[in-house]
Amino acid sequence: MAMTNQDTICAVSTAPGTGGIAVIRVSGPQAIEISDSLFTPVSAGKDLLSRKAYTLALGSIRKGNETVDDVLVSLFRAPHSFTGEDTVEITCHGSVYIQQRILQLLIGAGCRAALPGEFTQRAFLNGKMDLSQAEAVADLIASTSAGTHRLALSQMRGGFSNELAHLRGQLLDFTSLIELELDFSEEDVEFADRSNLKQLATGIERLIRRLTESFRVGNAIKNGIPVAIIGETNAGKSTLLNQLLHEEKAIVSDIHGTTRDVIEDTITLSGVLFRFIDTAGIRETADTIESLGIERTFRKLEQAAIVLWVIDLGTPVPQIEALAAELMPRTVGKKVILAFNKTDKLTPAELTEKLSLLPDITADRLYLSAKSPADIERLEALLLQAAHLPEVGQNDVIVTNIRHYEALTQAHAAILRVIDGLEQNLSGDFLSQDIRECMHYLGEITGQISNDEILGNIFGKFCIGK
Amino acid sequence: MAMTNQDTICAVSTAPGTGGIAVIRVSGPQAIEISDSLFTPVSAGKDLLSRKAYTLALGSIRKGNETVDDVLVSLFRAPHSFTGEDTVEITCHGSVYIQQRILQLLIGAGCRAALPGEFTQRAFLNGKMDLSQAEAVADLIASTSAGTHRLALSQMRGGFSNELAHLRGQLLDFTSLIELELDFSEEDVEFADRSNLKQLATGIERLIRRLTESFRVGNAIKNGIPVAIIGETNAGKSTLLNQLLHEEKAIVSDIHGTTRDVIEDTITLSGVLFRFIDTAGIRETADTIESLGIERTFRKLEQAAIVLWVIDLGTPVPQIEALAAELMPRTVGKKVILAFNKTDKLTPAELTEKLSLLPDITADRLYLSAKSPADIERLEALLLQAAHLPEVGQNDVIVTNIRHYEALTQAHAAILRVIDGLEQNLSGDFLSQDIRECMHYLGEITGQISNDEILGNIFGKFCIGK
Repeated sequence: MAMTNQDTICAVSTAPGTGGIAVIRVSGPQAIEISDSLFTPVSAGKDLLSRKAYTLALGSIRKGNETVDDVLVSLFRAPHSFTGEDTVEITCHGSVYIQQRILQLLIGAGCRAALPGEFTQRAFLNGKMDLSQAEAVADLIASTSAGTHRLALSQMRGGFSNELAHLRGQLLDFTSLIELELDFSEEDVEFADRSNLKQLATGIERLIRRLTESFRVGNAIKNGIPVAIIGETNAGKSTLLNQLLHEEKAIVSDIHGTTRDVIEDTITLSGVLFRFIDTAGIRETADTIESLGIERTFRKLEQAAIVLWVIDLGTPVPQIEALAAELMPRTVGKKVILAFNKTDKLTPAELTEKLSLLPDITADRLYLSAKSPADIERLEALLLQAAHLPEVGQNDVIVTNIRHYEALTQAHAAILRVIDGLEQNLSGDFLSQDIRECMHYLGEITGQISNDEILGNIFGKFCIGK
Repeated sequence: MAMTNQDTICAVSTAPGTGGIAVIRVSGPQAIEISDSLFTPVSAGKDLLSRKAYTLALGSIRKGNETVDDVLVSLFRAPHSFTGEDTVEITCHGSVYIQQRILQLLIGAGCRAALPGEFTQRAFLNGKMDLSQAEAVADLIASTSAGTHRLALSQMRGGFSNELAHLRGQLLDFTSLIELELDFSEEDVEFADRSNLKQLATGIERLIRRLTESFRVGNAIKNGIPVAIIGETNAGKSTLLNQLLHEEKAIVSDIHGTTRDVIEDTITLSGVLFRFIDTAGIRETADTIESLGIERTFRKLEQAAIVLWVIDLGTPVPQIEALAAELMPRTVGKKVILAFNKTDKLTPAELTEKLSLLPDITADRLYLSAKSPADIERLEALLLQAAHLPEVGQNDVIVTNIRHYEALTQAHAAILRVIDGLEQNLSGDFLSQDIRECMHYLGEITGQISNDEILGNIFGKFCIGK
């Protein structure tokens, strides 16, 4: 790993494509020297090498006779930069040509093109942040709602890391008590008060459990609350989804059974992310593809937290009752919303009569026309109500990353074994082994325990330039 | 205009979308104050108001309890900034959510969202650059090839402006000589030596003419050398174009007459931009749409500098001869390349026989298979050869903007009238009127003469944030 840091790397750090301006980041031991070799300052004599950190220099990027652009250069000196290395940020005009040309010249002068996430990886390797903070950088950039943004920012700024450091402190306390016991084991003295140990272990277990359980909320905030839209073919599911998404993702057609692929899309309502699962309609059919679609519908139903059942008001009541008998048992523990659709197809008198005949199904219900914006708004309000995520405070630590969740689950299993061992009066060295395992998994989260494969997996998913 | 500058404006200046980082620019009399109200520095007490210009400050953007992001702030003080006003550039993480949230907070704190090109417009209004330089900023950002980039950069850095200032100087010399003559006109003394005046005027005319004529080259560099791809339906025009473009823009199909729309696309070969005009095939047809396509083909032919005529080698020779008779008269003054296509469909023996029978058409020719990368490379070499643009030096002033071209054309007409007047021995006040008109048009280019409509037209085409 130390070898990697010998290189000086460069990449465009702003969004790809043409903009007013773009920023090219150069980081590594030769960042200032290489940048300086291409930089002509407006004020003669003010080269980059002699400039103070945290200053801006106006000038141009040149190579021989060629002037590439007038630029603004920001200078950072190790360790006071994002990566912890000497860093230069070149702000140029945002044409793709200029961005590429400056990169070419930097590479020609001794830089290497940065790999995805390599700047953040260096920040981690140079001790500027732990691994969970580094991962939060990617989450922060990808966040599209107030909720995901708040969680990622809190994690990046060390909220989760502090919690883990706290846990680690408690585990170290536990270990030192156990070791004290081990040191005196030959004298057969139980030095550590076992009831103290038990109290400490249950406290640790409670903390890890709280973090592990927060993943349900964290995952819903990050990936969206899964909503399955189900119903008979041609009940208007795709039209309704399109109205919710305000765009045309699903194929809308009057032919029964048009939607054969499971399409997923998301919307944000009042800062809450919903992930929609549009499914093939439910219908008795001999068509194999169609049957596969229905099978998927039921499988998707299992993943959903909210079930939005769309019913064409024109459907005969016995048919609705038959479907309810089939569907409702599959929705135990989920929030169900019945959306009686196509009110616009009935006269007010017909509608009143129809409503009086509808079967008694236990669920939130509303009567709507997918074509009415006001009706869509009422549906959105019902969805928000059904979401009932606990209020997340600015400082609450919520786990959103599946890697962290898995490590916490393992750590939790280990601490449960410790508690079990204490109850069974196992000796200190047995307990100590599980405690070490618990610390190992927590260390994986922060990166105290890591290897190239783990790092490759994490940073390979970053964008280039970050 | 002075009113406009009272506002403090803000916009995202980097490319739209998600990136590692993004830069939000704030400019105007309250830029520092407003930014400071949302900024919490890492080092306490180091607020923006008391910071020196050209420095970077680390901190976070906050509003009440809400922390939006950790940011880096660049500070510029009037007049030493791009706009000539106090300016703050906020570098934040590049999520769209963060970009939008910071803009919202800035607007909530008293900023106004910047209009397209408003930062550059302010730079112009505050005398940081003239109008032709401001226009070059947009050209620079839009430039996609070495050629367009070099011309835009040279114009932005004042190459054209210097030339115009030089012209203006000569026109002022002329005017002062004429005015001297006018002052003494009652005494009927011809003070200004008319032959001197004539020499000066022809010098000015030559300069303006050179600039006007450079537009032919400038336009080709900027908008591409127009290449019309013509030929019978199914000769393989679309496939060939796709190979040149290395992508699938035109619909390729074996059905005759597939390409009905005129598709334009560009490629850059060795820094030279080519603009391709793919056309509907030429074929006797009763289909109205098809006929319209052919009409367009001939119309497009007029605009082309290079005609790439694609001929299926399987076409009967008499048919090729008939087409040549129809087409070649329409290509006078243009470079014609005959591309005999589908060599892969013939055996070497068939090919040799075929080639011996081909009619004698005066044009560059090559035999190719659109599927052979080596053949495509040979075609590219022929195109480059046919382009024969004059070598443009680093410091040559080339007009690329149609607005400038039109103003120069008017200025040229005016100076020709001056020369004509001198030859007809017209009196000084008549000459003076045309000289003023000449200066007026040149002033339009640099923006000494401008109005809101002209400025609106120019800056309205910029992207937001520049």
